[in-house]
Amino acid sequence: MKKFEKILRDIKSVKIQGAENVAKASMEALIAYFSKKNFRKPYIFISKFSSASKRLMKTRPTEPLLRNSIRFVLKEIGSEGETNEMTNRMFSACRQVLYHYEVAEKSIADIGSNKIENGMKIFTHCHSSSVTGALKRAKEQGKDFVVYNTETRPLFQGRITAKELTKAKIHVKHFVDSGGRVALKECDLMLIGADAITSEGKVINKIGSEMFAIVAEKYSVPVYVLADSWKFDPQSIYGIPEPIEKRSSKEVWDKPPKGVEISNIAFERVDPDLIAAIISELGVYTPENFVSEVKKTYPWLSR
Amino acid sequence: MKKFEKILRDIKSVKIQGAENVAKASMEALIAYFSKKNFRKPYIFISKFSSASKRLMKTRPTEPLLRNSIRFVLKEIGSEGETNEMTNRMFSACRQVLYHYEVAEKSIADIGSNKIENGMKIFTHCHSSSVTGALKRAKEQGKDFVVYNTETRPLFQGRITAKELTKAKIHVKHFVDSGGRVALKECDLMLIGADAITSEGKVINKIGSEMFAIVAEKYSVPVYVLADSWKFDPQSIYGIPEPIEKRSSKEVWDKPPKGVEISNIAFERVDPDLIAAIISELGVYTPENFVSEVKKTYPWLSR
Amino acid sequence: MKKFEKILRDIKSVKIQGAENVAKASMEALIAYFSKKNFRKPYIFISKFSSASKRLMKTRPTEPLLRNSIRFVLKEIGSEGETNEMTNRMFSACRQVLYHYEVAEKSIADIGSNKIENGMKIFTHCHSSSVTGALKRAKEQGKDFVVYNTETRPLFQGRITAKELTKAKIHVKHFVDSGGRVALKECDLMLIGADAITSEGKVINKIGSEMFAIVAEKYSVPVYVLADSWKFDPQSIYGIPEPIEKRSSKEVWDKPPKGVEISNIAFERVDPDLIAAIISELGVYTPENFVSEVKKTYPWLSR
Amino acid sequence: MKKFEKILRDIKSVKIQGAENVAKASMEALIAYFSKKNFRKPYIFISKFSSASKRLMKTRPTEPLLRNSIRFVLKEIGSEGETNEMTNRMFSACRQVLYHYEVAEKSIADIGSNKIENGMKIFTHCHSSSVTGALKRAKEQGKDFVVYNTETRPLFQGRITAKELTKAKIHVKHFVDSGGRVALKECDLMLIGADAITSEGKVINKIGSEMFAIVAEKYSVPVYVLADSWKFDPQSIYGIPEPIEKRSSKEVWDKPPKGVEISNIAFERVDPDLIAAIISELGVYTPENFVSEVKKTYPWLSR
Amino acid sequence: MKKFEKILRDIKSVKIQGAENVAKASMEALIAYFSKKNFRKPYIFISKFSSASKRLMKTRPTEPLLRNSIRFVLKEIGSEGETNEMTNRMFSACRQVLYHYEVAEKSIADIGSNKIENGMKIFTHCHSSSVTGALKRAKEQGKDFVVYNTETRPLFQGRITAKELTKAKIHVKHFVDSGGRVALKECDLMLIGADAITSEGKVINKIGSEMFAIVAEKYSVPVYVLADSWKFDPQSIYGIPEPIEKRSSKEVWDKPPKGVEISNIAFERVDPDLIAAIISELGVYTPENFVSEVKKTYPWLSR
Amino acid sequence: MKKFEKILRDIKSVKIQGAENVAKASMEALIAYFSKKNFRKPYIFISKFSSASKRLMKTRPTEPLLRNSIRFVLKEIGSEGETNEMTNRMFSACRQVLYHYEVAEKSIADIGSNKIENGMKIFTHCHSSSVTGALKRAKEQGKDFVVYNTETRPLFQGRITAKELTKAKIHVKHFVDSGGRVALKECDLMLIGADAITSEGKVINKIGSEMFAIVAEKYSVPVYVLADSWKFDPQSIYGIPEPIEKRSSKEVWDKPPKGVEISNIAFERVDPDLIAAIISELGVYTPENFVSEVKKTYPWLSR
Repeated sequence: MKKFEKILRDIKSVKIQGAENVAKASMEALIAYFSKKNFRKPYIFISKFSSASKRLMKTRPTEPLLRNSIRFVLKEIGSEGETNEMTNRMFSACRQVLYHYEVAEKSIADIGSNKIENGMKIFTHCHSSSVTGALKRAKEQGKDFVVYNTETRPLFQGRITAKELTKAKIHVKHFVDSGGRVALKECDLMLIGADAITSEGKVINKIGSEMFAIVAEKYSVPVYVLADSWKFDPQSIYGIPEPIEKRSSKEVWDKPPKGVEISNIAFERVDPDLIAAIISELGVYTPENFVSEVKKTYPWLSR
Repeated sequence: MKKFEKILRDIKSVKIQGAENVAKASMEALIAYFSKKNFRKPYIFISKFSSASKRLMKTRPTEPLLRNSIRFVLKEIGSEGETNEMTNRMFSACRQVLYHYEVAEKSIADIGSNKIENGMKIFTHCHSSSVTGALKRAKEQGKDFVVYNTETRPLFQGRITAKELTKAKIHVKHFVDSGGRVALKECDLMLIGADAITSEGKVINKIGSEMFAIVAEKYSVPVYVLADSWKFDPQSIYGIPEPIEKRSSKEVWDKPPKGVEISNIAFERVDPDLIAAIISELGVYTPENFVSEVKKTYPWLSR
Repeated sequence: MKKFEKILRDIKSVKIQGAENVAKASMEALIAYFSKKNFRKPYIFISKFSSASKRLMKTRPTEPLLRNSIRFVLKEIGSEGETNEMTNRMFSACRQVLYHYEVAEKSIADIGSNKIENGMKIFTHCHSSSVTGALKRAKEQGKDFVVYNTETRPLFQGRITAKELTKAKIHVKHFVDSGGRVALKECDLMLIGADAITSEGKVINKIGSEMFAIVAEKYSVPVYVLADSWKFDPQSIYGIPEPIEKRSSKEVWDKPPKGVEISNIAFERVDPDLIAAIISELGVYTPENFVSEVKKTYPWLSR
Repeated sequence: MKKFEKILRDIKSVKIQGAENVAKASMEALIAYFSKKNFRKPYIFISKFSSASKRLMKTRPTEPLLRNSIRFVLKEIGSEGETNEMTNRMFSACRQVLYHYEVAEKSIADIGSNKIENGMKIFTHCHSSSVTGALKRAKEQGKDFVVYNTETRPLFQGRITAKELTKAKIHVKHFVDSGGRVALKECDLMLIGADAITSEGKVINKIGSEMFAIVAEKYSVPVYVLADSWKFDPQSIYGIPEPIEKRSSKEVWDKPPKGVEISNIAFERVDPDLIAAIISELGVYTPENFVSEVKKTYPWLSR
Repeated sequence: MKKFEKILRDIKSVKIQGAENVAKASMEALIAYFSKKNFRKPYIFISKFSSASKRLMKTRPTEPLLRNSIRFVLKEIGSEGETNEMTNRMFSACRQVLYHYEVAEKSIADIGSNKIENGMKIFTHCHSSSVTGALKRAKEQGKDFVVYNTETRPLFQGRITAKELTKAKIHVKHFVDSGGRVALKECDLMLIGADAITSEGKVINKIGSEMFAIVAEKYSVPVYVLADSWKFDPQSIYGIPEPIEKRSSKEVWDKPPKGVEISNIAFERVDPDLIAAIISELGVYTPENFVSEVKKTYPWLSR
Repeated sequence: MKKFEKILRDIKSVKIQGAENVAKASMEALIAYFSKKNFRKPYIFISKFSSASKRLMKTRPTEPLLRNSIRFVLKEIGSEGETNEMTNRMFSACRQVLYHYEVAEKSIADIGSNKIENGMKIFTHCHSSSVTGALKRAKEQGKDFVVYNTETRPLFQGRITAKELTKAKIHVKHFVDSGGRVALKECDLMLIGADAITSEGKVINKIGSEMFAIVAEKYSVPVYVLADSWKFDPQSIYGIPEPIEKRSSKEVWDKPPKGVEISNIAFERVDPDLIAAIISELGVYTPENFVSEVKKTYPWLSR
């Protein structure tokens, strides 16, 4: 239970960040939480599981990957049998989820690397482990290419990307965010991650993503989104909007003069018309076909 | 002569910055330089004037306003008469230039303010004294509007704009540069300054300007450029490209890891198709008509 | 049988209008037609049903909702059993269809209302009960918004929309059709209904719909189509064009001078690229995914 | 003086309408007003002329043609000489203006007709005497073509166009305004008139004009504006917006239900990027070159 | 075996050309190869089949139709039973494939002809038997239309199209490739074939296809691709690019001067955004829905 | 007179081709024609000059350069003085024209070469001596670049370009015309010549020019037109269309089957919106400013 609380704190304080990392840690938190517990009655277990998972889901507003994972676990737990059977099914389900993440990550890196060719200039924004995974896989395959990336204000996640890639011996050219057009004009490919994907095929990702996608379209640079398919948000089927996180103004300007209002929205929606394809563990599909594939492959996800 | 050298240093060290400020200070530097001097022979005066003005022009690569001002002074000096006649014509010309700046600034603020209406949301990027002048004039006229501006990395000139406008009681909403699309989607007008304008109607301005102009076009937000018409670059008639200043990588990231190359280009070209009109002391004209008006009004400028 | 004939007349004379109303009335007409009849042989019943439903389908050329409903009833009737079993299956099927309409209507209003936010300006054209349903639901939820609508010449159905909405206390701003651009430039959302949807994702709706969708795209106003999924036209899979109704020239200009030819086409096709999503009882989907969802959910519909 | 008052009334009551007709009648009104008058002193004459012309200019807000004509007369009157000399110069100037109108009209018809080819389908909106002039000239030249026109709600000026053209044996196909896209998709050319033209090359014309121009661009149908060059609005050089007339809501819907707000804006601005050329008595020029030609040909107009 | 070798040679030497013809001939080659053979052991048969089919697949790099056909045959052969059972299943499968081609061809002609209307001008590029099939079917139905086609350098396949169509009494207007824009501006429809279709909805076809599709979009001419659905390339799901054939420079310029490099790429990718629909034996679907339909109908194809 | 007749024949038989070459030869033809003649009366000389120049102008329909040159000579001849004075003025004027060609050619090469940078890929279509002049000048300046060019069916003028450039050691990559998109996607610049330029800023050039300009715009490749400013067609001011030459069908397909109609239009109009600038001896100007500059510099040309 200590481990559970620690993970909870670390997600809240952004020590653990990124949709994949938050989801992984949450699965581990659930395993830890229940690993030394015995519940007399199924309904007590279910109620405990429910409150524990709610606490995890509350930490970040824009995280369908976590919500879908918990939905999967709940489905696997089912409503029949003894408490210990339920608990065992829960452990097994959490481990299946963790295995899913692992397989998805590897598949996305493999498939994504097939889009990278020798001599390419590749644009990316912010930090996405799916994107860096594909880039590093391509480098391992001996391909030679350059990554153009933005610093990504206010939190400079672009520097994390730059550090990770240079460690893998990938050459990086680094731009201020307003230099995005200059960078994209020279590029052959744009790769970004995703926090959520809707039934309209919209991709929710770090602010700036749609602006750069607009510029990419102007210069005929194809935009690929690399993401675990469980980032699909089933609520969007009913028109329920994915909430967009607004963060502290201090991150942008610590002490602005009075009268200056700071906007620090963390994400924006990228229109499917600006996206060539979504690369997930299911393969390379247009946003429209991604939606039908994810619904077909994981029917529990949208039911 | 000391004043001359001080101004020269201040321009080099960016203590004096902005095309208008650099040009003004340079005129004053020339007045100071020659104010206590006597030259025996006209050719000596001309040679001294030539070397002094060359030193001023070398301080910054992208400054047609200064180059055109010196061209005007040279034309006025002419080649006839005694040394003291020449010197006097020079003093008079420098003062005419300073007066031109003053009149132009006031006209641009007046005309520009006519484009601002009650209830508008107005986007701007970086800092331009022509833009803040028009905004403040509109505020003085009792108009109520909001300015959406970007922080403008790496040097945060957007903060200078925000401070200047809030001092004039104008409400400012401040965004990271990658939030430009989110900001523009809500705006009615985009106002920027210019460092140079070419015979093809291209406007050279702070990096990010064309990216935001592309987004503005997508959202049908008209883009107006506010600038002294002497920023027209006559060399562009002969296809000679205006040089684009590249600044120190330290401004972007002080100590990047090895293998990360920093791009710190200061300006970019905005295509005339993205610009509704250039507002100068000559009036409101499309980039094409701006070029013909400036050539007609100041024939010495393009000869 | 009298009721049947009356409904038939009322549809022909446009007393009953709108795809949903025509389909509902037709189901009721069929129930009425057969409610006091006994047929000795199944084949006689089938032949009677066939001719009655053909007469209903002939009333309006552009109505796949009705055609699909009858197709459903036919499928349910089947080919086995006694005449009275068949008749009973027919009554049951007609009632299922009526229930489907009801559920679909409610779902579309619910889902559609989720797209409406406080403070929005929403554009609509002509009259669609799906659209007014969603608007009224949003109003019931306490949302505050304004509807911009067109008068919709020649028959001024826009006035029907305006009346219905003001009755529900929704503020309406009313424009001549040529003011559509002025209206859309200020709007956040465009909502329209549909008469038919093809396998290419094209939406057939009142003339003017694609023109306004083109303008909406220019101003980045998302276009949502609200429609019962049974408006999908399965014949389009085989490339067979949905016929477009041409109405009397008198509706446009009663007595035009000789030599003036009047065009009074009732509908036009809206390209799927101009549509953000189709909102049906199946959820919010791009036109492409709408087609795959409708085929998956109602396999009998496209077989 | 009676004639003067009658003309004034007729313009106010829209008996006299169209920029050209209003301007012509105003010139005749001025001639009538002063034809039987003697003023003792030049300043009395000037003051009388000033108040008479102001009353004429007040009748309609969007009429630079009239304002420029009076400006021309004033310039010709000058400030020297006796009263009767002044009066004579005024009569002469008014007649020159009337002659200018006549020549311009004929030139525009001649030049405009050169754009019309056998077999063409030509779109027009509202009623413009410059457009019907060119069409009738082309018909006189034996060319065979069809005109697609809109009814132009709320005042149905499209019917005036249709009547005038059928009288000249030109075949007309007539559409409701929302059928504009359907009409334009088949057309080869779009011709409209203008009420005013600004220094940014924007054309102010009947509401719907920019909407149809947007559609025309989508279908690569070139848009030509036919107008007397004196419709150029010199105030636009200083950023002063041409006022847009708002007319009575009764014209749109006589008795709307409470809660329905009617928008009845008479004009809209057409972006120069949507216009192939402006055809005036000066020739065929892009909006940008039209502005420079008009300024060059009539320097008094923009001074 | 002789027949097998002859077919192999004829495909290599381009005597047999076109994706359908190559695939048909390959099936016949396989039937011939095994028709007089007996293999003692299943594994010998499998190994022989494998090497024979590999030789066929190697003849042309861009042919998923052939690869998918062989995949189908292999699946049908299975791994159980005696050699002669296997052989029989192989013969049967090859015949099923040939029958599939025949049915698909007929369906595409039927469905495609529904898109052709009286009076149309239809653009095509290169030679596609699916396209000529649909055109000839429409002609048989008594429709009257004109085909605008390109000569299609370097091999002038446009002449083959022109000859085939004129033989069927279809009027042809023939253009050099650079006249494609002039031709398309007048057309109502563009029909092309396909060599391969990817999971992103991209269509690979003769070089020039995307250029003409770009022009078609500018002129709002809908582009339909006519193709057997087995041209879907399942490897594209994993991001593996379809190889693009580069042919001999001699085809373009027999003896170019030294220093001139010749580019003779045979195909290019057409973006799905430029395609209205793909017409296959499965029906008329957008590229996105084509992909989901083909996966649903032939699950073995993408497994 | 023999030389005159020979030149006339050579122009007709396309031995002499290209707007510049035809104009030069025509000037020389006129000098030759009158060099050994004496006319007793001025009116005889004028009549002879008139008929000789008409015969030259009739040789090719799309040649404003020649028409403007003769217009210049006529203006210089004037109507005063003796026959021999007139003749002398004619000789002098013809030589001025030849000198103008020479200076313009050199200026265009100089200015055009300023647009070419190290490492660029430059697209061109057909053959233009202005374009090859600028490319060769850039090469002389030591710049390293590649030219991508089309073969330009039906007459393969692209091969002339390729030969001329490789002779100057410029690397050439050569494409079939339908490979234009593939070529342009990689290029940084597109350079073409012009046969005529209209008052609407349209450039008339070899068929394919607008198609490639459309593609260039899609890929943000700037298009520059290099041309002597005397190619401006003053008749376009009055809406008179420049005739477009239709050439023999034999050039495209020597013996097409019956029923195949060949289109062999030699030129097409390029829209000014697709052109970054026209580079003439007057400098680098947008099409709009080109028109105003040419009218200002050569007032006789448009009077």
